[in-house]
Amino acid sequence: MSSDNKPAGRLIKAPENFLDPAGVRQVFAEAKAGRRGFIRSAFMAASAAAVAPVAMATSNPVGSGEGDPNILSLPEHSKGLGQPVVTDGYGKPSKYEVNVQRRQSPGLTQTAQASVSFAPLQSLFGIVTPSGLHFERHHQGWWDIDPSKHRLMLNGSEPAMLKRAMVFTMDELMRLPSVSRFHFIECGANTGMEWGNVAVPTVQYSHGMLSCSEFTGVPLRVLLDMAGVDYKKARFVLAEGADGSSMTRTIPMEMVENGEVLVAYGQNGEMLRPEQGYPLRLVVPGVQGVSWVKYLRRIEVGDKPYGAKDEAIHYMDLMPGGQHRQYSSIQECKSVVTTPSGGQVLLDKGFYNISGLAWSGRGRVKRVDVSVDGGRNWRTARLEGAVLPKCLTRFNIDWVWDGKPGLIQSRATDDSGFVQPTYGQLRTARGTRSIYHNNAIQTWLVQEDGEVKNVQLS
Amino acid sequence: MSSDNKPAGRLIKAPENFLDPAGVRQVFAEAKAGRRGFIRSAFMAASAAAVAPVAMATSNPVGSGEGDPNILSLPEHSKGLGQPVVTDGYGKPSKYEVNVQRRQSPGLTQTAQASVSFAPLQSLFGIVTPSGLHFERHHQGWWDIDPSKHRLMLNGSEPAMLKRAMVFTMDELMRLPSVSRFHFIECGANTGMEWGNVAVPTVQYSHGMLSCSEFTGVPLRVLLDMAGVDYKKARFVLAEGADGSSMTRTIPMEMVENGEVLVAYGQNGEMLRPEQGYPLRLVVPGVQGVSWVKYLRRIEVGDKPYGAKDEAIHYMDLMPGGQHRQYSSIQECKSVVTTPSGGQVLLDKGFYNISGLAWSGRGRVKRVDVSVDGGRNWRTARLEGAVLPKCLTRFNIDWVWDGKPGLIQSRATDDSGFVQPTYGQLRTARGTRSIYHNNAIQTWLVQEDGEVKNVQLS
Repeated sequence: MSSDNKPAGRLIKAPENFLDPAGVRQVFAEAKAGRRGFIRSAFMAASAAAVAPVAMATSNPVGSGEGDPNILSLPEHSKGLGQPVVTDGYGKPSKYEVNVQRRQSPGLTQTAQASVSFAPLQSLFGIVTPSGLHFERHHQGWWDIDPSKHRLMLNGSEPAMLKRAMVFTMDELMRLPSVSRFHFIECGANTGMEWGNVAVPTVQYSHGMLSCSEFTGVPLRVLLDMAGVDYKKARFVLAEGADGSSMTRTIPMEMVENGEVLVAYGQNGEMLRPEQGYPLRLVVPGVQGVSWVKYLRRIEVGDKPYGAKDEAIHYMDLMPGGQHRQYSSIQECKSVVTTPSGGQVLLDKGFYNISGLAWSGRGRVKRVDVSVDGGRNWRTARLEGAVLPKCLTRFNIDWVWDGKPGLIQSRATDDSGFVQPTYGQLRTARGTRSIYHNNAIQTWLVQEDGEVKNVQLS
Repeated sequence: MSSDNKPAGRLIKAPENFLDPAGVRQVFAEAKAGRRGFIRSAFMAASAAAVAPVAMATSNPVGSGEGDPNILSLPEHSKGLGQPVVTDGYGKPSKYEVNVQRRQSPGLTQTAQASVSFAPLQSLFGIVTPSGLHFERHHQGWWDIDPSKHRLMLNGSEPAMLKRAMVFTMDELMRLPSVSRFHFIECGANTGMEWGNVAVPTVQYSHGMLSCSEFTGVPLRVLLDMAGVDYKKARFVLAEGADGSSMTRTIPMEMVENGEVLVAYGQNGEMLRPEQGYPLRLVVPGVQGVSWVKYLRRIEVGDKPYGAKDEAIHYMDLMPGGQHRQYSSIQECKSVVTTPSGGQVLLDKGFYNISGLAWSGRGRVKRVDVSVDGGRNWRTARLEGAVLPKCLTRFNIDWVWDGKPGLIQSRATDDSGFVQPTYGQLRTARGTRSIYHNNAIQTWLVQEDGEVKNVQLS
């Protein structure tokens, strides 16, 4: 692996296969050797430039000592015509960003159609997840469904639940009142490996079943009103997808009545991507991703929870003492530092911007505190605005690394007063056998040699 | 052109070449014939489904009368395994969205390296512009610059302007304090054709030099502070790009001192796209796009405006009486209805969601009023939140079309109290010979046959 085609500041790419520790060590070693050399020569070039700024405006190459001798000569891109405007072609990222990719976790599932690809959180900025890097979770693979043939049916478990069953074409849905809102989506199993104290090495694999988009669609409430739903009787909604998994999930009517649940066709300005349920998915703000049914084809209203396969067997929390809890679908307040994070390497002492994400399925993030000493001392981070409900919030805080080992943590508080728990607090309440809804405080160990590792502090 | 591969609700794709009226008429004719037929059969299928909902859960095909006989049979995507998770591949839109593209305006410029591609506003939702559809304006073509070789220099027009000249690598910039903010970018020449009463047929060509992203970067103020800039002396900034056009623009120091101007590397969660200045561009909120210098390589501070080529010859407003005004860089309050808009066809009477965008370079949009009778009566539209400063705001309003001709307009007001002018008001103040900063109220004529056309009302 070459370290040349990596974006500046990313320090190191996520190892492609985290199950191969030898490979990871090699990547670290190469990156450190290459990058430290590069940084050193860059500083020397910078010093040369500072005393001879004219070099940047002429075609005379200026020697820069160690490193690339042409680094300050006038580059090709300053001399002539570049590429023409892109027309009839959908734009792509720079070729230097080719390592910023969703990645699958080998061996996590038996088929790649019922698997996960994780979003590269360590390389992302702000709160918007580019749709090309949005995490994926499929139960039976993804499809590119013809929107002109797709239908959404709305019916009742019994005739008395509504005045009329209805079927909508996409055309009809897109003529109805629409809203646009930013929301995060997180798989209930995100950070699931960590329940078992398996410290996966990068934030992509530990927290990467998390994304955030601007969604556009029709409030489901509008459709239910059109169908004349009797809200006294119909207290639950069943959402059903059109793909082979026939995913079905129960949504309590309170979530729908307040207008928050959307029948969405738009994501980040354009139509949903096929991997995200094109042409139609449910958006259930604050709730785990499995309820955001993709390829949405049917809504049924009824008077009790449906106890569908993915509610009765999967997506349940195993609790201490052999108990379990069901329908625990809300993603509680959580945060994670994305830079620096596991798999990255700090190349030098000095100033760093610690950056991360915070979110709560209950509402807005109120505050994020950051520790660099494993929770002994905390400072409050700066939240990038606007801070929106049930949406990712980006936080940043200054840090001067003294070169000694550090333990970096973030702890979010939401506007309901909920404070993100430590692993000790989480395990006391919920045991150690769950897969879902791990929202404990994440710790990154910064070693003296600059390597960042995932460790668990109780 | 087939109308089959178009997304539902888009009604009609933008004609590819608006200079060919015969082609446009043909597209209209085909689309109306095809789409009206489709809608009719879709409604019949919907009625059939409503009385036989079981059809959607079995593999028995149910005849649907007119139209596709298989429309209600269990489709392939409900029967088996779909595609595996995408790994090591950057995601793409659905194949059914292939017509949603940036488009060049043939003949607008002599070379495609110094041209424009327009964003397909008629097909976009919310406020985020997908980076693959962000409008382009190049002065000498675009480049994919190696970030490990890119430098930003900071110097003074005279030594007294600052304590030290500096040169930053991308690594160094990305370690500094970063912020993330949503802002619109609009070319000063957006809607420029309309000054001459040339009513281009679609909103893509009339208003499509407009996009909106979440930008991440370092406030320029941070860099100037590091260099020890003397703010009493240095009242102007010159920004210079590294591409062949060597674009240079003057920015008044007041815009920088308040922390709003960013040296940005991130856009919509990932690194800037090459067409948008990868790896570094200036973000100057509220100001015309030409000042958002791409491939940013140098910042100079000085004591007077620089009068660079693109300030002394281009990007000046020709005023009545042979005068011109210079450095009029702020994009004033403006709005446009994107649906329905020119080139679309309303296929039926009845309910529509009128949707559009509003923005102001002075601050927040306070209110948008919509008229369907050419400005005689106005209703206030619903603004999608959060309404952010110097950012696009999406508005929506209900409309029931009675099938008679209509004149659809939107009129934005910002929080400085500025009200978007009519063409009459704009021309009284600024004449008819300008190219830049046309923020007049746009009118779309809805004809009795459903065709939507661009017309100018004074």
